[in-house]
Amino acid sequence: MQREMAQKTALIVYAHQSPASFNAAARDVAVEALTKQGYKVLVSDLYAMNFKASATADDIKGDLKNPEHFVYNDEMMTAWQDGRLSDDIAEEQHKLEQAELVIFQFPLYWFSIPAILKGWVDRVLIQGFAFTMQKMYDNGVFKDKKAMLSFTTGGTESMYQADAIHGDINVMLWPLQNGFLRFCGFQVLAPQIFWCPAYTPPVARNEMLDSWRERLHGVFAEKPLSFAPTEYFDMSFQGGFRLRPEVKEKCASLTHGITTAHHLGKPLPPDNQTKAKES
Amino acid sequence: MQREMAQKTALIVYAHQSPASFNAAARDVAVEALTKQGYKVLVSDLYAMNFKASATADDIKGDLKNPEHFVYNDEMMTAWQDGRLSDDIAEEQHKLEQAELVIFQFPLYWFSIPAILKGWVDRVLIQGFAFTMQKMYDNGVFKDKKAMLSFTTGGTESMYQADAIHGDINVMLWPLQNGFLRFCGFQVLAPQIFWCPAYTPPVARNEMLDSWRERLHGVFAEKPLSFAPTEYFDMSFQGGFRLRPEVKEKCASLTHGITTAHHLGKPLPPDNQTKAKES
Repeated sequence: MQREMAQKTALIVYAHQSPASFNAAARDVAVEALTKQGYKVLVSDLYAMNFKASATADDIKGDLKNPEHFVYNDEMMTAWQDGRLSDDIAEEQHKLEQAELVIFQFPLYWFSIPAILKGWVDRVLIQGFAFTMQKMYDNGVFKDKKAMLSFTTGGTESMYQADAIHGDINVMLWPLQNGFLRFCGFQVLAPQIFWCPAYTPPVARNEMLDSWRERLHGVFAEKPLSFAPTEYFDMSFQGGFRLRPEVKEKCASLTHGITTAHHLGKPLPPDNQTKAKES
Repeated sequence: MQREMAQKTALIVYAHQSPASFNAAARDVAVEALTKQGYKVLVSDLYAMNFKASATADDIKGDLKNPEHFVYNDEMMTAWQDGRLSDDIAEEQHKLEQAELVIFQFPLYWFSIPAILKGWVDRVLIQGFAFTMQKMYDNGVFKDKKAMLSFTTGGTESMYQADAIHGDINVMLWPLQNGFLRFCGFQVLAPQIFWCPAYTPPVARNEMLDSWRERLHGVFAEKPLSFAPTEYFDMSFQGGFRLRPEVKEKCASLTHGITTAHHLGKPLPPDNQTKAKES
């Protein structure tokens, strides 16, 4: 009897209210392109699911550890260990466990992810499940998975430059890309940025989707973004999680990370800019 | 007949689930310190209010402009003009209008604000009410108001340095402080950062609260954080919202903004670091 290979899986966490939106079209392109490559594609359509955003005691089944003082992180860690997380969270965790690629598809809300998607991050990525004090960054729980932010903006590309009014978009993305994706170990792929589709003529919108489709066909061969290797840091309370003295000099000449130069006057080196269409 | 002076007002937008938390204690200190200075203090206790976080069509009373394709920003702008926002949003906007100081009190969740507070930002700060294409940054709607992020961390201060594993906390705060506070015109006061109170002994926790109380007694005299002046940029689509050529050279020698040097090797100039206790 031939053993069936487990089908490879991708997860799209999608946060737009309207099936007629550009975000919906971008999601559909991804479902189609990944399915064609033999992937089983799971979609978490957060608004359609009426996904709960706020971190509350309702996320835990059974008794609280400390009902006198509710500490979300502590309660959730215990509930995860005991299999007492609410069903909606457990289901998202199960999807995430299967996925080797996770795409977050959303419109930028106030220079970050919409609240409903922040709720997914806050509630699903629980200590124990998504990270531990030993398993973070390069040693993170999800180090064999890839993740990507794919989003639409209201503003133009010009506004999000190092010398422009909103500053470098890489700075804006740092708390997301380094903050939760890389922290949990994900290999972070370059963000897919759809600049201002609402004010883009239909032909150009279709070109944006075509380019997205094309990128997705090569997505598993993409080199992830480069961050400072975790081994550069003394990952202990004694060492303060600071750069090791012996690598300080070495680092000064490198261009790791996508953090950022100063808002004004010191743009990032060109090879460090986000290239959304690079694949 | 003597005309009564309108009482000055402060607003605390508070996002913690537990009345026994350090965040609750920090809120109480602020209520007391500001009340002593003659302020009427409004508190939005988001979890206690069961504040809705997700941006949906329920935020609008009456008919949608375009039910075939729901565009949140467009629908909300129209609903605000017509007085058809949901009552919970209208109430928060009314509080915000009265306040000359707004303090956001929260525990850091994934290097940002908790989803319930992101929901407040997404739903309350509606185009028309909080900004327009003409009224943003230095010319913002709330330019006569001050705002401050006051938050607790799980990690230690050492982890949030330019040469440490999480990177400079100023980078992490950029999408919040420049992104929504300054964008709406707020004068942004230095963040109040309570490092790791959960692992701090009671005496030191009390000292943190004493220091917060002391800061608040001088808070209205504080100089806001410095950002690049909006007039440095050509705020037009033709000009791309980029730095004006004539100020480029000038800027290279300045240390505006709290964005950030490169994650590694180029720490911020000392005068540009966030000093939480500076007042």
